[in-house]
Amino acid sequence: MSDRPIDALDKAKGKRVYIRLKNGEEITGMLKALDLHLNLWLEDVEITAGQTKRKSNVLLIRGDNILYASPV
Amino acid sequence: MSDRPIDALDKAKGKRVYIRLKNGEEITGMLKALDLHLNLWLEDVEITAGQTKRKSNVLLIRGDNILYASPV
Amino acid sequence: MSDRPIDALDKAKGKRVYIRLKNGEEITGMLKALDLHLNLWLEDVEITAGQTKRKSNVLLIRGDNILYASPV
Amino acid sequence: MSDRPIDALDKAKGKRVYIRLKNGEEITGMLKALDLHLNLWLEDVEITAGQTKRKSNVLLIRGDNILYASPV
Amino acid sequence: MSDRPIDALDKAKGKRVYIRLKNGEEITGMLKALDLHLNLWLEDVEITAGQTKRKSNVLLIRGDNILYASPV
Amino acid sequence: MSDRPIDALDKAKGKRVYIRLKNGEEITGMLKALDLHLNLWLEDVEITAGQTKRKSNVLLIRGDNILYASPV
Amino acid sequence: MSDRPIDALDKAKGKRVYIRLKNGEEITGMLKALDLHLNLWLEDVEITAGQTKRKSNVLLIRGDNILYASPV
Repeated sequence: MSDRPIDALDKAKGKRVYIRLKNGEEITGMLKALDLHLNLWLEDVEITAGQTKRKSNVLLIRGDNILYASPV
Repeated sequence: MSDRPIDALDKAKGKRVYIRLKNGEEITGMLKALDLHLNLWLEDVEITAGQTKRKSNVLLIRGDNILYASPV
Repeated sequence: MSDRPIDALDKAKGKRVYIRLKNGEEITGMLKALDLHLNLWLEDVEITAGQTKRKSNVLLIRGDNILYASPV
Repeated sequence: MSDRPIDALDKAKGKRVYIRLKNGEEITGMLKALDLHLNLWLEDVEITAGQTKRKSNVLLIRGDNILYASPV
Repeated sequence: MSDRPIDALDKAKGKRVYIRLKNGEEITGMLKALDLHLNLWLEDVEITAGQTKRKSNVLLIRGDNILYASPV
Repeated sequence: MSDRPIDALDKAKGKRVYIRLKNGEEITGMLKALDLHLNLWLEDVEITAGQTKRKSNVLLIRGDNILYASPV
Repeated sequence: MSDRPIDALDKAKGKRVYIRLKNGEEITGMLKALDLHLNLWLEDVEITAGQTKRKSNVLLIRGDNILYASPV
């Protein structure tokens, strides 16, 4: 059990993940790349901010905004 | 008594832990991995945010959001 | 798949990008340079802050203000 | 007088300490381990958050939440 | 295109720049020196904080307060 | 004049100092030890938080909470 | 023009400076010492916090509280 916490997300590369930001926004997308700061490169993205939904082909999230993340 | 504080949680790996976030959310889950920033990989997770409860199979919490943590 | 997250934006150099700041402002411009902190040099910039729109020929954004970014 | 500030707490290991968090919560417990970030491992813990009191056998406090601390 | 983002401002040394702070204040002045944290030494400065305007011959801005900056 | 700013407080070791925290609390006590982060070990302490006064024999203040400090 | 931004303040050592804090407080005093974090040792100090004025013979300001600073 010498896993690193980031492996929880790393093994989801190429699959969809759910991200919750500190400001309450929720983001789902296909995880393309990540690093130890939790900077994330997502593709085919949907962002939910309160009642508003937006779509984006590609999104780079700055890791310090992230509350938690899950493989979907 | 040369324990490190993180050992309080490290010895709970494979068991359930309780996490309280700075934003007031409460999370319980089985601790799979942790690091010195308190980044946590949890499994079989329940998140309580005010009146709302959510479940997640796998959750990666960014450590800087954590207020405190306990083995259950 | 050994991409770094920042490559999501790096490959948009010379093209237009969309930036959302933590304070809610939205910025679009042509990406001239970026670094690992997400400090960004944009040209031909439009800033939307609530109902207010401003234009700028050149803008340096301090990276710690960024929520997320997208190639347009 | 070449003491380090952390020695104020270090010499209380095995004894009860009082912790005040930045969010106003007050915590008392037996200090089992600490580090230079003020991450704390407490045992036999009582947490007071406004009118609410909770108990915990073991608690790991992330040091960046701490306002100040005292031996009891 | 191996520019660094800070070069957007560095090439404005000796000329006037516009600075917007995270707290909403707006500052213009002649840029005398800058560093990688975006600490800035300005001369012949005008500060606009809401309805209030102030002038200063010399101003050192601590870089972590900066939202973005532009050559004027 | 090659003094370091921290020497303003360092030379007050063994004497009483006044501390103002970012949250508005005011603390006086005898300075026993300090470090470069401004972590402080005080003895014979009085804490004023609004209308409330508390006393403590020993107090460790986490330096990142400090606004400014004075020898008394 | 290889000045560092901090030189804007450094050359004011022994003279009076004006400091504005992130919390809105304004401080003037004779600058005795400073470092790269903008920790400042001031003497013969006047602090203005809203309608309240206070004086202090010696003041150590923790640099992370500073918005900007000027020689007077």
